[in-house]
Amino acid sequence: MNPNLINQDHSNLGRSTSEYQALDAAHHIHPFSDTAALNTHGSRVIVRGEGLYLYDSDGHKIFDAMSGLWCVNIGYGRRELADAAYQQMLELPFYNTFFKTTHPPVVELSSLLAQISPDGFNHVFYTNSGSEGNDTIIRMVRHYWATLGQPKKKTIISRINGYHGSTIGGASLGGMHYMHEQGDLPIPGIAHIEQPWWFANGGELSPKEYGLKAARALEDKILELGVENVAAFIGEPVQGAGGIIIPPSTYWPEIQRICDHYGILLIADEVICGFGRTGSWFGSEHYGIRPHLMTIAKGLSSGYIPIGGVLIHDKVANVLIAGGDFNHGFTYSGHPVACAVAVANIHILQNEKIIERMNQDVAPYAAQLWHDAFDAHPLVDDVRSLGFFFAVTLVEDKASRKRFSNGSEMALRCRDICLKNKLIMRATGDSMIAAPPLIMSRAQAAEFVALALKCVDEYAREIGR
Amino acid sequence: MNPNLINQDHSNLGRSTSEYQALDAAHHIHPFSDTAALNTHGSRVIVRGEGLYLYDSDGHKIFDAMSGLWCVNIGYGRRELADAAYQQMLELPFYNTFFKTTHPPVVELSSLLAQISPDGFNHVFYTNSGSEGNDTIIRMVRHYWATLGQPKKKTIISRINGYHGSTIGGASLGGMHYMHEQGDLPIPGIAHIEQPWWFANGGELSPKEYGLKAARALEDKILELGVENVAAFIGEPVQGAGGIIIPPSTYWPEIQRICDHYGILLIADEVICGFGRTGSWFGSEHYGIRPHLMTIAKGLSSGYIPIGGVLIHDKVANVLIAGGDFNHGFTYSGHPVACAVAVANIHILQNEKIIERMNQDVAPYAAQLWHDAFDAHPLVDDVRSLGFFFAVTLVEDKASRKRFSNGSEMALRCRDICLKNKLIMRATGDSMIAAPPLIMSRAQAAEFVALALKCVDEYAREIGR
Repeated sequence: MNPNLINQDHSNLGRSTSEYQALDAAHHIHPFSDTAALNTHGSRVIVRGEGLYLYDSDGHKIFDAMSGLWCVNIGYGRRELADAAYQQMLELPFYNTFFKTTHPPVVELSSLLAQISPDGFNHVFYTNSGSEGNDTIIRMVRHYWATLGQPKKKTIISRINGYHGSTIGGASLGGMHYMHEQGDLPIPGIAHIEQPWWFANGGELSPKEYGLKAARALEDKILELGVENVAAFIGEPVQGAGGIIIPPSTYWPEIQRICDHYGILLIADEVICGFGRTGSWFGSEHYGIRPHLMTIAKGLSSGYIPIGGVLIHDKVANVLIAGGDFNHGFTYSGHPVACAVAVANIHILQNEKIIERMNQDVAPYAAQLWHDAFDAHPLVDDVRSLGFFFAVTLVEDKASRKRFSNGSEMALRCRDICLKNKLIMRATGDSMIAAPPLIMSRAQAAEFVALALKCVDEYAREIGR
Repeated sequence: MNPNLINQDHSNLGRSTSEYQALDAAHHIHPFSDTAALNTHGSRVIVRGEGLYLYDSDGHKIFDAMSGLWCVNIGYGRRELADAAYQQMLELPFYNTFFKTTHPPVVELSSLLAQISPDGFNHVFYTNSGSEGNDTIIRMVRHYWATLGQPKKKTIISRINGYHGSTIGGASLGGMHYMHEQGDLPIPGIAHIEQPWWFANGGELSPKEYGLKAARALEDKILELGVENVAAFIGEPVQGAGGIIIPPSTYWPEIQRICDHYGILLIADEVICGFGRTGSWFGSEHYGIRPHLMTIAKGLSSGYIPIGGVLIHDKVANVLIAGGDFNHGFTYSGHPVACAVAVANIHILQNEKIIERMNQDVAPYAAQLWHDAFDAHPLVDDVRSLGFFFAVTLVEDKASRKRFSNGSEMALRCRDICLKNKLIMRATGDSMIAAPPLIMSRAQAAEFVALALKCVDEYAREIGR
């Protein structure tokens, strides 16, 4: 097909919605879904994206306040990334990096990532996803300590409701009980501590007091396991799938102190936070922490193509490099087309100063709107935002901070009301969360918050409040 | 960039080889590599591919007899796939399939896969790689048995030198000791039996006798573990990374009998065999086995973009669908651009009858050349081929079937001689293996075998034979 002739017709590929739904039901097992229930109603068919908006096969325009799935940081429809994919696919659509070979796109991306990463991060190991990135970290961290002559240091400490992907390793690191229940997880050598959610766990403590307490759960766990057995601590700077949990300001500095004190590795899962979500390039920079490894994916390519990886601080890289063969990797590690697309994506973030603009202008503006809309709203509490993270928790009684016993169900009802109103937000536990593309303008921020408020009000009426 | 203007200049992006090597060494940790050793010599920089050939940054033309890494089945440089990626990236570069949504490319690919798969395979679950596919299988198989009320059936039996990827789960399923040594593998619930390699393990038995014996190791293991604890058996129809191990004809029928008899699931890892490598669309078809799950990747997109998945037989799909939420998946499961590229790839395989032509014409021709070249060669033994798999094992003394004590080292020497002669083959243990693109013509097959023979002869001279 001639690229000049395409993208003229924005309709779907010619099937009706019901045809798509029937074929989808007949042949496609969706991730994280109840397939029988889904097939009863039929999937919504998304056919096109442009900026912050999606279009379905029935012609509806939908405000995507979840950036695809925390990933389309530059928005939909950027021709530069399509051009990069096209050019690279004609030139060299694939070659591996296993057998003493490299190629221009993986070199350019590696060099670019070293430039934009915090000081001391000069090396990259590539994967196809955040899941594979975190899975890699388990093998890498254990190999690191074994190379240093401490093979007993194997256990990685993570957090309840943390999300680190869906592989056996990633889902074990994660703290999602509904994932652990399927497939005999977690694997040995993973331990979990509480998540730093003041609203849920803080009790009578102030947020700052609670931040210290939550961090010290790491110290308690290290002492319980024995520091000689502990390899690392991993956490998302802001927990994403766990409900946009923004820790108290005291939390990360205390985590840093504990990791330093006991000499364990600090790992930041930047799959969601990385590439601008918090207003800094990396969430670690926002919190001023100094991790040894950072998992990246999603915003790395704005989701236009699957790619992930691990950014490696010199302290770890030097040991890995000197340690002989590291027997790990993926056929598509450093895939040339994926790397070329990621380079184009990062150039857009840089050249258009998208993160800086969002951080200095729209994020504070949108945060103000968010708080104005919800702070006094009787149906929600723990109104929170940071960068382009926005969340509220549904409550039964705001005065007494009383949460619903069936909070997930209530949030799913609210989520479905959002969908009906052509707004994509996500229900996580009893929270309603959003993470729009970083290109959102002030006007679009106002549109987003107004829509979200309309949906929460409609939810309130629906439950008779 | 205007697509009309690109791909005119086939040079690299403008850096010198030494610049690429320096940047690569400074910032890129390669998979399955000794990075310090690699950086001492510098990587070869692959800049372009066309058909079966690669070009490096110094202008050398290289015969790629490994199809990238068992994946570029349709060869390099097919514009149709670049067009598909370009068009889809402009239209809808990403959307997730988690939250009651689907999109045209994932529907089209799912439907197409159901058409080309063996009877009873009507559903697909998507991943980004074969590793994630096999990792998914562990969770899926355990969920399947738990849904049927048999949660104790968790253990999966696999084989020594099997390769099932590099995640914690995939590498545990795999039987590579050098991978198990790093990262505390395998995880619990995986057991390994011998690989069906007559040349290495057959002793005085005939190949047919040995095939039965190797298969019965599965029965012994089931009885040892207790069938009430065994969920499944997984194997590559032909072991790839394990050295192109083509089992005796008696092996797979006996494996099928044992799986049927004990009622455990049979899983075919088709990551390498799938999409034509054996001369059939799937290796399972070549051997006439009836698996319940098949892992796919590589040939699915000819490696042009990362995508993998699990093909699910109705027997398993019906249980999964009725079983409520399956709490598993990846952000990029069913990625629209990856699906669009895979559809274009499968259409090329279908429309150009690439597999049929290869199976009926070039494969038997190339097999004859391969055996003519090597059967009587004093330095190799166990000369083997099937479809577009080709392998020999280096031997110290052919008459007595004596293998080298340092066989891996010898094979790596031979591999480096191949590279010097601009032929990419792979050294695996003491075997030299190849798996060229399925588009290889008769003339190119003759070129390939002549080059391989030249390299083995040069290796013979180098070791003084």
